[in-house]
Amino acid sequence: MAKKVQKLKGFPEWLPERELVQQHLIALLRHQFELNGFTPLQLRSVERVDDLLEQGETDKEIYGLRRLAADAEDDKEAKLGLHYDLTVPFARYVQEHRGQLTFPFRRYQIQPAWRGERPQRGRYREFLQADIDIIGSGKLEVRHDGQMIRLLQDVMRALPIPRVRLLVNNRKVLEGFYRGLGVEHIHETLRAVDKLDKIGSEGVARELRIAGLDDQQSKRCLELAGLEATTSAELDRIRDLGVTHDLLAEGLTELGIVLDACASDGGVVAAMRIARGFDYYTGTVVEGVFAEGDAPSVCSGGRYDNLASGSGQPLPGMGVSIGLTRIMGLLEDHLTQDRKTPAHVVVIVHEDERRAESEAVAAALRARDIPCLVSDVTSAYGKQMKKASQLGVPYVWFPGDTHEVKCIVTGEQASASLDDWRPDPEHTRLKLGAP
Amino acid sequence: MAKKVQKLKGFPEWLPERELVQQHLIALLRHQFELNGFTPLQLRSVERVDDLLEQGETDKEIYGLRRLAADAEDDKEAKLGLHYDLTVPFARYVQEHRGQLTFPFRRYQIQPAWRGERPQRGRYREFLQADIDIIGSGKLEVRHDGQMIRLLQDVMRALPIPRVRLLVNNRKVLEGFYRGLGVEHIHETLRAVDKLDKIGSEGVARELRIAGLDDQQSKRCLELAGLEATTSAELDRIRDLGVTHDLLAEGLTELGIVLDACASDGGVVAAMRIARGFDYYTGTVVEGVFAEGDAPSVCSGGRYDNLASGSGQPLPGMGVSIGLTRIMGLLEDHLTQDRKTPAHVVVIVHEDERRAESEAVAAALRARDIPCLVSDVTSAYGKQMKKASQLGVPYVWFPGDTHEVKCIVTGEQASASLDDWRPDPEHTRLKLGAP
Repeated sequence: MAKKVQKLKGFPEWLPERELVQQHLIALLRHQFELNGFTPLQLRSVERVDDLLEQGETDKEIYGLRRLAADAEDDKEAKLGLHYDLTVPFARYVQEHRGQLTFPFRRYQIQPAWRGERPQRGRYREFLQADIDIIGSGKLEVRHDGQMIRLLQDVMRALPIPRVRLLVNNRKVLEGFYRGLGVEHIHETLRAVDKLDKIGSEGVARELRIAGLDDQQSKRCLELAGLEATTSAELDRIRDLGVTHDLLAEGLTELGIVLDACASDGGVVAAMRIARGFDYYTGTVVEGVFAEGDAPSVCSGGRYDNLASGSGQPLPGMGVSIGLTRIMGLLEDHLTQDRKTPAHVVVIVHEDERRAESEAVAAALRARDIPCLVSDVTSAYGKQMKKASQLGVPYVWFPGDTHEVKCIVTGEQASASLDDWRPDPEHTRLKLGAP
Repeated sequence: MAKKVQKLKGFPEWLPERELVQQHLIALLRHQFELNGFTPLQLRSVERVDDLLEQGETDKEIYGLRRLAADAEDDKEAKLGLHYDLTVPFARYVQEHRGQLTFPFRRYQIQPAWRGERPQRGRYREFLQADIDIIGSGKLEVRHDGQMIRLLQDVMRALPIPRVRLLVNNRKVLEGFYRGLGVEHIHETLRAVDKLDKIGSEGVARELRIAGLDDQQSKRCLELAGLEATTSAELDRIRDLGVTHDLLAEGLTELGIVLDACASDGGVVAAMRIARGFDYYTGTVVEGVFAEGDAPSVCSGGRYDNLASGSGQPLPGMGVSIGLTRIMGLLEDHLTQDRKTPAHVVVIVHEDERRAESEAVAAALRARDIPCLVSDVTSAYGKQMKKASQLGVPYVWFPGDTHEVKCIVTGEQASASLDDWRPDPEHTRLKLGAP
């Protein structure tokens, strides 16, 4: 092992007290996903580079793989790369196993993804994502889009993090509006408008000009981008702009269904400036941001009608992705949680010769599902307790003919029985601190 | 997405009904690890190639990474590769954060590792591992070796898999014995002996001759390799071979401590033919195999005194690794578990207009932590039930003024209340089938 260690930029790792928080978030997510009947999958981390590139974007910064011991055999095999999201691999998996799956197929997946981007605030080269997707065989009704956004809203609320606002839109609304204006370069226009929050309306106007839009078209696009709606009725604001196109009308209907499916508390807003970067989205798109501050998005997703389709029936899907690493990065400085172990109890060791006595206590507690550690040191009680306290463990246990338990938080000490003692949940639950 | 999909050899993925089993195994492991006070970590997947290579083995078949969009900047950065185990990254992490950790430090980690080996039975290019390790600052008493093996024994027993036999040894015993015989090339001798089960005693004898051992030395090495012991007293069989060396004596003492720490039911056996491949082991080594059959090892580990040490205090560690993918691969053909979703209930939809009624039932069940799905189709009840049955869901729920629940397993149907109905755990627990 190298003498000096130096962190790798863009590859975050957490200390135990932070990782316990991340695992707590993951456990909450899994619970919500499973309550809703999403089945877990853990897929391979690599895909054929050709499949990764096929989504047509050049800025995904794929990491290619090559065996250091590669030989001529390797050159005959497909080039492999690490996946940059969990959607493309999932679509590939569904296509590969379509004959063995029951549709619509719902899965959740919590795994890292990799992007070789230049590291910056909120941008990582390896990051953990929690995705849920539903894929239909042949078709997938728009009500699923609404249900997925509604579920995302519920799930984000169930997490002990700052309030998240979901900005939704529909690619058909944008594309239909642009087509209605006679715009030709739809893709470039979408990309320019999606940058509104980053580069401002003048910046967008400049990019639209490059994309070939005239001043009038550009003005109308920016007008649209400025609009928001929190109910399906408010979508009339967009219709009132006077642009007409079949695709626009279809998109507005779909967007209305999504808005109607969500809790009407202002937590979900149709925002016409949201387009999302991935090419594969074909309808609904969503992006979640902390309601306060200007942090980058913490979740996102959308509808993809053609991602998993190849030969045979189309396999349209709708999915959302929660950026666990991004959330952890944003919370990091505010977290006060300081327990460094899952243990709730440290069992004191009176002296080396009596270690077996403490091990027996630990075994009895574990048999009753109480996580615990036996003190690693056999020094003065004060020192053993200090170590427990350093670990953030709330209780120490003194074995004896009569057992005693001391709560480090309250300072109280009382006799306890191995048969029925339980830690106070108030002292064992993770306290994240007001974020 | 490519029109044709073709599996990648060596990168296994499971169908939902199998993944549910894997997740069940993972949940059991996490529970055991946390009960014992091991804290979770999720570390990055990449290391500097130099750090990976430093462990001195050439046969680990590392996957190197390179951004497809690499430029001159990239050439200035450290070359990166995917880790081939979870021990080397953990040791690096401990060294990096030694000032912020409380020692001895216990962690568990469940992540994939990658090795670019030619795929064959039980050998994968990407595989999931569950590791526990303990690392001390300055020193780590041998009793921890015993505790780790004992814990591994308990954990493997807690899994619903065939009985596992743990074969333990101590590198000091082997090295001390070889040195006592005057053998020079210790490393080569260890490697040759470790292949006994694979290439037989004649094969080993041949390799030992190549390693420079004379016939007498080779004969004694094979004599040792044939010995087993299930108690510390039985280790006298090794002492009785008459070879003496300080390191041998030290190793036998350590091995005795390990054997004494374990349940004496024959599940843990000191086997002198076990050496383990990794160079970084310095004392205790362990390898677990299904007691029946000739399957490859499903768990392994050992003591490493120098892996995490660099500048400052040494950081000796002891760890074991459970090969989840390997276990799944061995179980796969015997599994009968056929539920394809975490849902316990499918709520019937009477007709499209009444979908909201079914959604409300689902919400009420979920609020009481009962995982469920609302039927995706609105067809004849028989068809909706058939779909639930295809998914392996044990119950269907008929909403109404009086709700009714039908158990698909028993065929019984009865009225039920949203306030207190619960599924029978007998019908919801995963049934793995007799492995």
